[in-house]
Amino acid sequence: MTFSLQNKDSRSEARVGLLTTKSGEIETPVFMPVCTKGAPKALTTNNLKDLGFDMVVANAYHLFLKPGHKKIKDFGGLHPFMGWKGSVLSDSGGFQVYSLSPSAKISNDGVSFKSFIDGSVNFISPELSIEIQECLDSDIMMIFDDCPKPDSEYSRILDSINRTRNWAIRSKKARKSKNKLFGIIQGGIYEDLRKTSLEHMLEIDFDGYAIGGLGLGEGQSKTYEITEKICSMLPVDKPRYSMGIGKPEDIVNSVELGVDIFDCVVPTRNARNGTLYTKDGKINIKNSIYNMSDKLIDEDDEQHPCSDYSLGYIRHLYTSKEISALSLMTMNNLYFYKQLIESIKKSIKDGKFIDFKRSFLERYKNESN
Amino acid sequence: MTFSLQNKDSRSEARVGLLTTKSGEIETPVFMPVCTKGAPKALTTNNLKDLGFDMVVANAYHLFLKPGHKKIKDFGGLHPFMGWKGSVLSDSGGFQVYSLSPSAKISNDGVSFKSFIDGSVNFISPELSIEIQECLDSDIMMIFDDCPKPDSEYSRILDSINRTRNWAIRSKKARKSKNKLFGIIQGGIYEDLRKTSLEHMLEIDFDGYAIGGLGLGEGQSKTYEITEKICSMLPVDKPRYSMGIGKPEDIVNSVELGVDIFDCVVPTRNARNGTLYTKDGKINIKNSIYNMSDKLIDEDDEQHPCSDYSLGYIRHLYTSKEISALSLMTMNNLYFYKQLIESIKKSIKDGKFIDFKRSFLERYKNESN
Repeated sequence: MTFSLQNKDSRSEARVGLLTTKSGEIETPVFMPVCTKGAPKALTTNNLKDLGFDMVVANAYHLFLKPGHKKIKDFGGLHPFMGWKGSVLSDSGGFQVYSLSPSAKISNDGVSFKSFIDGSVNFISPELSIEIQECLDSDIMMIFDDCPKPDSEYSRILDSINRTRNWAIRSKKARKSKNKLFGIIQGGIYEDLRKTSLEHMLEIDFDGYAIGGLGLGEGQSKTYEITEKICSMLPVDKPRYSMGIGKPEDIVNSVELGVDIFDCVVPTRNARNGTLYTKDGKINIKNSIYNMSDKLIDEDDEQHPCSDYSLGYIRHLYTSKEISALSLMTMNNLYFYKQLIESIKKSIKDGKFIDFKRSFLERYKNESN
Repeated sequence: MTFSLQNKDSRSEARVGLLTTKSGEIETPVFMPVCTKGAPKALTTNNLKDLGFDMVVANAYHLFLKPGHKKIKDFGGLHPFMGWKGSVLSDSGGFQVYSLSPSAKISNDGVSFKSFIDGSVNFISPELSIEIQECLDSDIMMIFDDCPKPDSEYSRILDSINRTRNWAIRSKKARKSKNKLFGIIQGGIYEDLRKTSLEHMLEIDFDGYAIGGLGLGEGQSKTYEITEKICSMLPVDKPRYSMGIGKPEDIVNSVELGVDIFDCVVPTRNARNGTLYTKDGKINIKNSIYNMSDKLIDEDDEQHPCSDYSLGYIRHLYTSKEISALSLMTMNNLYFYKQLIESIKKSIKDGKFIDFKRSFLERYKNESN
């Protein structure tokens, strides 16, 4: 069994579950640090282990281009290559062929695109995406999907859900391993198309269901509206994954709507841009008020991975362009996300999720979004 | 007492000593990782602690310019600013005003130079250098010295040893704290001037003695020749520091000649250039023979900080421009230096230093220097 429900909040759709992969058991809700190229940005996989993470997300598209999925297969798979004993979910590349290759050409067969590395022309079909993901030996694979911008014209989104249905069938058929396979629900901002795409996926039947095409400019309230509708129609006994979501408040709000699995570049990318996540909201280390500040990121947390370093020192490292600034800030942000997830799970188990949500969002000031 | 001799090799000048600072006791020979701007490159000070280092070297010149020595004093000194409980030795800036400011103008008062950060004109005198170092609250301070290239004309080097004598007297007079102060022996490649400079320093009397102006293009055999002469004339009961030395073989050979303290940018800078130090010599991770290699850096060392990562993975990180490549490679190189120092100390205590030196250098192939 892939997933078993452990706790369900009585006042919302929030839930704690147990997701089982060949690499281990993962309590949900879970946040997966992004390891696009087989590595977290500015940290090592051992750092992720030390922070308590047990699942990461990698990308079929990037690893296909470099170092190449067959080379990773020859190595024994992505886990030994990365030195990672936890679980790996791989995205299929459906999203990346567009977002990273503006001139990508789509047909019913698949997508031809120019490599973002060397400009060479490549082609990924649903069958190749699954082959890549099986070479990686991901614990959880994603179907190859057609993922246009969610506010594209109705006809384009209609095309995309039909193509995604076809590709989902082909993805499932192409699977040779026992690795889990998740379907992806497309449909953009159109409620009827979302519903149809969901029915397509349920009909094909997958180990879990993902909501694709979110967080791409449709606006936060639309994200929640779509998430709520989809979660209300999904079976309770399968895990639900909001792809690319999200900001801390998005995670809290999406858990409330019934989402189990998250990944997002926000904590790692924003670290490199100077943003630190704290319980009191985001802070920008470039702000001169932190010049030589002797305050800690979290004065009350002795376990904090940056507890030996003041905001003034981290700012000095950042403005001096020291690499360690990026590592420490990434460490803080992923620690913040991990602690947030732990607090969410505890509150659900204690029957206090809504109280937690209220007090978290009240303290976490989100003025600078 | 600053220094006590613990063991002396019978077949060479190699020795184990105990150096006492206000921050703790340090067994010598010791290698100090370079923390020029108050931070190791690509690692944190906690990483250095985990690697077993107990003393680092910082730089008065850089910290004077940014963030400013008075701000560090207001913070409580460099130790709390860096989150570092070990010892700190600070270089005086005598070398950096030249090497980083080509248009520096020297007078008997001090050196005026343009900031390498913003081009602003600054002036450092021996008195200001000591004030900076006392604001940092370094455990060991260095006199402000005049450090021309060692192969400069005789008359220029003669000038420099006389000026360094004068500045050494002024540096010692300027000291208000009980922090240790080391003299610096200049004299370039000229044996008589080295001897005179050494006599100057002994006459003024310091807590320890450094050999300055080495490793600046004079050639390895000249470095050793100067080191040997100077060590033979230094008192046995004071610590000896070879500034900026050196490569692994330089450390082994300099220990043999009686040197106790080392610092060098080589392990950290070379890591960022793709070089890994191993017991079998240096390797260049950019070399395609490491493409997807499943070999470890040291197959026999389970304690190695990179023992979860193959050379092929580290190469993938490096060629993918992942920040973690620089951290892991720096970690390896500093670990290598630390293990080298530990092996040296053990061999001296066991009366087997010369045997160790022979077997180390035989295995450590240095063809690519």
